[in-house]
Order: sequence, then C-alpha cells, then structure tokens
Amino acid sequence: MPVIDCLQYANWSESIFRQMRAGGVDAVHVTIAYHENFRETVLNIEKWNRWFEQFPQLIFHGRSGDDVRKAEAEGRTAIFFGFQNPSPIEDDIGLVEICHTLGARFMQLTYNNQSLLATGCYEAEDTGITRMGRQVIAEMNRVGMVIDMSHSAERSTLEAIEQSSRPIAITHANPHWWHPALRNKSDTVLRVLTSSGGMLGFSLYPHHLKDGSACTLESFTTMIAEAASRYGAENLGLGSDLCQDQPDTVVTWMRNGRWTRQTDYGEGSANNAGFPPQPAWFNDNRDFANIRDGLAARGFSPSEIDGLMGGNWLRFFDDSFGPAA
Amino acid sequence: MPVIDCLQYANWSESIFRQMRAGGVDAVHVTIAYHENFRETVLNIEKWNRWFEQFPQLIFHGRSGDDVRKAEAEGRTAIFFGFQNPSPIEDDIGLVEICHTLGARFMQLTYNNQSLLATGCYEAEDTGITRMGRQVIAEMNRVGMVIDMSHSAERSTLEAIEQSSRPIAITHANPHWWHPALRNKSDTVLRVLTSSGGMLGFSLYPHHLKDGSACTLESFTTMIAEAASRYGAENLGLGSDLCQDQPDTVVTWMRNGRWTRQTDYGEGSANNAGFPPQPAWFNDNRDFANIRDGLAARGFSPSEIDGLMGGNWLRFFDDSFGPAA
Repeated sequence: MPVIDCLQYANWSESIFRQMRAGGVDAVHVTIAYHENFRETVLNIEKWNRWFEQFPQLIFHGRSGDDVRKAEAEGRTAIFFGFQNPSPIEDDIGLVEICHTLGARFMQLTYNNQSLLATGCYEAEDTGITRMGRQVIAEMNRVGMVIDMSHSAERSTLEAIEQSSRPIAITHANPHWWHPALRNKSDTVLRVLTSSGGMLGFSLYPHHLKDGSACTLESFTTMIAEAASRYGAENLGLGSDLCQDQPDTVVTWMRNGRWTRQTDYGEGSANNAGFPPQPAWFNDNRDFANIRDGLAARGFSPSEIDGLMGGNWLRFFDDSFGPAA
Repeated sequence: MPVIDCLQYANWSESIFRQMRAGGVDAVHVTIAYHENFRETVLNIEKWNRWFEQFPQLIFHGRSGDDVRKAEAEGRTAIFFGFQNPSPIEDDIGLVEICHTLGARFMQLTYNNQSLLATGCYEAEDTGITRMGRQVIAEMNRVGMVIDMSHSAERSTLEAIEQSSRPIAITHANPHWWHPALRNKSDTVLRVLTSSGGMLGFSLYPHHLKDGSACTLESFTTMIAEAASRYGAENLGLGSDLCQDQPDTVVTWMRNGRWTRQTDYGEGSANNAGFPPQPAWFNDNRDFANIRDGLAARGFSPSEIDGLMGGNWLRFFDDSFGPAA
C-alpha cells in the first residue's frame, strides 16, 4: 500500500525530493497556487515541469490513482497539483477544465476569506455557496477536480458537501474537539463529510495540533483513534500541511496575498508571526515511519494503518480524478 | 485508411461537424490561434471544450495518431489543435509544453510577419531563425509539437528544417512552380522538407491554386502527380485551408490582427479583399471524395491515394506528437 501525503507546500528542492524517496512517500498533493491568477499559476506549473525534467528519477507529474501505483512500483514520487484558493480560475468557469487538463486535481473553494465561490473560515459571516460557486461545484464534479474545504467556513462546507454530486475532501485539518483552532473542523462537518464518502487528511501543522509544536505522537494517534471510531478509519488519511524550508515571508504571503494593506497573522500573532517549529516526531518527509509506528502502538490493525497512511487516499483518487460517470 | 485534413479554420458549427462526418473526414488540424496571446488562446480552447461536450457523437479532441484510428473506428472526427503564429507562447518558452499539454500539436513559427522566432513570407528581408527561435525549435522537438512553416519566408524555412531534430511540416501550401503565389513554396524548400521526412499539405485555398477559384480538379491532381514524382507521394497530404462560413471580417483579422493601422490585404487586394469562392469541386468537408476520385483518374495507385488522403499524415502524427525518443 502506498504512502500518500495529501498536502504539502515546501520550498521545493532536490533535497526535499530525495527526502520523499527516503521516507517512502509515493504521492504528494502539492499546492501550486495560493493567490495566483491563471497566468501566474501556469508559471508555477512551468516551474514544476522543469523539476520533473530535472529529477525524473525522483518525481513525476501524477494525474490518476494509477500514477500512485506506478510511483510505488518505480520507486518515485507522484506529484499531484492543487490550489488552496480558486484564484487560478478567476471569474471563468471554463478554466476549471483547462486547469484539470494541466493536472490540477484539488481546488479549495476559499482560502480563509470570502471568494467568488464560498466563504472562508476567517470571515465574520458565512453566506454559504455563491451563485458562481454552485456552477463551479458542478463543473468540478463533471471533470474530476476535488472540492477541498480545508480553509472554508462551516456553512459553506456543509453546503458544498450537499451540492457536490461526488465526495469532497478536507485535505488538511484536524477535529475541533481535539484542538479548538479556527481552522479545525466541527464534529458535524466531519460526520457529514465522511458519511458522504468524503475524506479528512490530518494536519501536522503545529497550529492545528493540540499543544502546538509540543504535541506528542501519542496525543496525535489517540485523536486519530477517536476520529476512526466516530467517522470510520477508511475515510481518514494524512495531509501534513508541511511547509518545509520556507522562509517566514512565505507564510506572510499565504496569509496576506495582495488583498490587504494591514498585516493579517492568520493562526499566528504579531509576536509569533512565522512558521512554528514542527513537532520532533514529524520534521519532514522522512518521518512518516514515525506515524506508522505510532498508529501501530495505538493498536490500529495493519490494514487500518495501510489505509490511513495512503490506501484510503488512493481509493479516493481512483474515484475522484476522472470525468463523472 | 483515414481521411485527414491538416488545416481548416471554419466558422465552427454543428452543421460543419456533420459535414465532416458526411465527408468521412477522420481528423482535422484546426487553427485555434492567429494573433491571440496565451490567455486568449485558452479562451479558444474553452470554446472547443464546449463543442466537444455538445457534440460528442461527432467530434472529440485528438492528441495522438491513435486518436485518428479511434475516430475512424467510432465514426467521429478527431480535432487537432494548432497555432498559425507563435503568439500563444508570448515570450515564454515554458508555454510550449503548457500548450502541448492543452493539446496543441502544430505551431507556425511565423504568420506572414517577422515574429520573435523567425521571418514571415511577407517581410522584405528574411534573417532566418532568431535566438529565441532556435530555443523554441528545440523545445518543440522535445515535447512533440510540430514546426509548421506554411507562412514563413524561404531562409527561415530552410533553417527551421535544418535546426529541427525532427521532421517539420508545411501544412497548407502548394508548389511555387505550379502557381507562383508568395505563399507557395519553392522547389528547393519542398525538396529539403520532404527529403528530411517532412510533410507538405496541399492547399485548396483559391489564392494558392493555379487559376484561383477556376482551378480545375485535373490541374490540381496533375500538380500532385508532378509533386509526387519530385518529392515522393509518401511525403504529401492535404491541408485544405478551408475557411468555411467565415465572414470577410475574419480574413481581415487573419491578415491584420492588431499589428497595423493600415489595412493589409495579404493575398487579396483592395478590390478583392474578402474570402475568394472555393472551386466547384471542393466547397466543404463533403467533397473529399471528389479529390479521391480525381487522384484515381490521374492514375495514382490505391495505396498512394490512401496515403495522400490521410495515411501519410497519420504516419507523421504517430512520429511527431509524443516526446522525443
């Protein structure tokens, strides 16, 4: 069974690609746009094309579940593109299919703020899915692009699940009942998400962890055990939100894009504005074995562990990335 | 063996797609950009995506030689995208691969004028392939996008053939020795083109025909026979340049884009500015049988006719549209 991490946004380099191989990571969903418009997103894809050309023995562009199997068989890592914001499709619904053709497989309908499609988790009021949002959900369903509500507000998330004809994902967040961060998800959302076939990827970003950077592996796996009992282990996976080797200017960009003149600190604060340190047991792509060991110590069965480490995402990829039946 | 037309730019409609089926046309290389920049070209692809969605029983997006075989087997027409100008890649070589991913399989290095890459056939001086042109030729070779020199000047064409590591095409033009139009090609160019494995598609655009709209089928097929004896029948096919149902404003756009304030009449004139009438024996996609009959009457063998009507292009598609070996 493959190891799949369903969200990373590292400062990509040969060193990180080698760590993916060292950690036996078969597939990674990478963010290629936070606030970029279409043309800027294409420039980011061009950068990835150069990495694919430069490091073909380490990585390649993944487009389907079978590409994960190919990666596993060939000892490489399949890279799947995703957007954290719908900015790449601008106001043009035709760009959904264009972006899918270019390889995008996930798109968040919002990133913290109100978008043209839905409401983000930092807005004071959540008005749910917009007129355009409803159309874009149908188009994403048609072409096989996954709706990701990781940074969306509660009502918008519930409406997206309801309006989508295919299961959606929250690629990187944790349950609010474990750690009541604004970005973590309510029990209601997680029940509706998973009971409709959707997937939750557990985040390892310290602001999403109980006790932050000091979170223990035991606390993390105990939370997963509770989530498995509530939502079914088969609907759960990992979405580490690993932002490795990024300078703090990047988290400022993620939070502020070009939408504000006042600095927004997101989950941080003026005194703690940068990337928080990772927990000791998950620093980079080489540490997935720690999580596997932690799940085993917590009493998960081998087949449950295989599912949590990647098998569940693989099933979801198989069902989600092609055109609607 | 399939029927392939290697250049059309019609005012696309269900009616024309039905005529393609009525004429047994298995594949068409369609122009999707004359002067459009990247974003505008993407909008044109979006239009095609809607047609593919609306008329799946008539057409689909072709990407490989096997898609021609699929079209033939399923009684549909495979549509291959091409650019008549390098404007879609702007000044960004990374857009060659992006456009290939989006389905572009042919790109002219110039359209009449000097471009960033080479010299067009209407310029007073031809300085050959530019610095960027050399790089773009190598990139097109790498990803599998065909260099098309239909509207390019002599020296630029010869240099493109020489610099390209893969055979190139002149998708729509005729021999200058048959009809000395500026757009028709010298014997030298056609010899160098075909002896390097390149393909010539015979144009049915009246300005490229001896006696224009009054050109006879016999004159056309006699020219093909002479071309076959000089260049080998296996390097020849059709590229009708059919601009069906287009208003005359479109030929004005083709000639003038947004590069001039003075009107350029191209192959026409102030008194004859519009699209010329097609010859009686080739009005639209239903008339390919006339050409087949004409070739038979002219004494071509059945296998030569199969090659000229599409088999030769199919071989070229097979060899040209994938990444370099």
